[in-house]
Amino acid sequence: MDNAIKILGLAAGTITSITFLPQVIQIWRTKSAKDLSMPMLMLLILGVSMWLTYGIIVMDAAIIYTNSMVLTMSLIMVYFKLKYK
Amino acid sequence: MDNAIKILGLAAGTITSITFLPQVIQIWRTKSAKDLSMPMLMLLILGVSMWLTYGIIVMDAAIIYTNSMVLTMSLIMVYFKLKYK
Repeated sequence: MDNAIKILGLAAGTITSITFLPQVIQIWRTKSAKDLSMPMLMLLILGVSMWLTYGIIVMDAAIIYTNSMVLTMSLIMVYFKLKYK
Repeated sequence: MDNAIKILGLAAGTITSITFLPQVIQIWRTKSAKDLSMPMLMLLILGVSMWLTYGIIVMDAAIIYTNSMVLTMSLIMVYFKLKYK
């Protein structure tokens, strides 16, 4: 049971870490980010940065990895949002 | 220190739970969701559902609350995406 829970957490983290990749690819292809909310992106970066800090303090590799990935995607989306509007 | 870590986790969860609210409001106002990636929304729902299941199994109220909120917003965004394209 303990192993099943660990695997579920790991799988959830893996899915979360790649969640924003299709969004990054779509903006890159269409050169349009008009419908993306900038306040949403700002909250995403703030929340993920806090999770990353939390992960570093409690030394949880899964939290650090997942949130590093989402932070990277978020920063790319902000760059695209500013570039393509 | 332990309390500071708990507060950081709680604050991070609060930010994450409201992250997609501005996006929902923007789509509702503009009636446009063209630039939102459907595969991104599907991965978001899948990941968040897994986190929610994980939270229920390990009985972590913060994980349950945060992911319930994000799941609700994700379902609204999918509805809007289908409605407004």
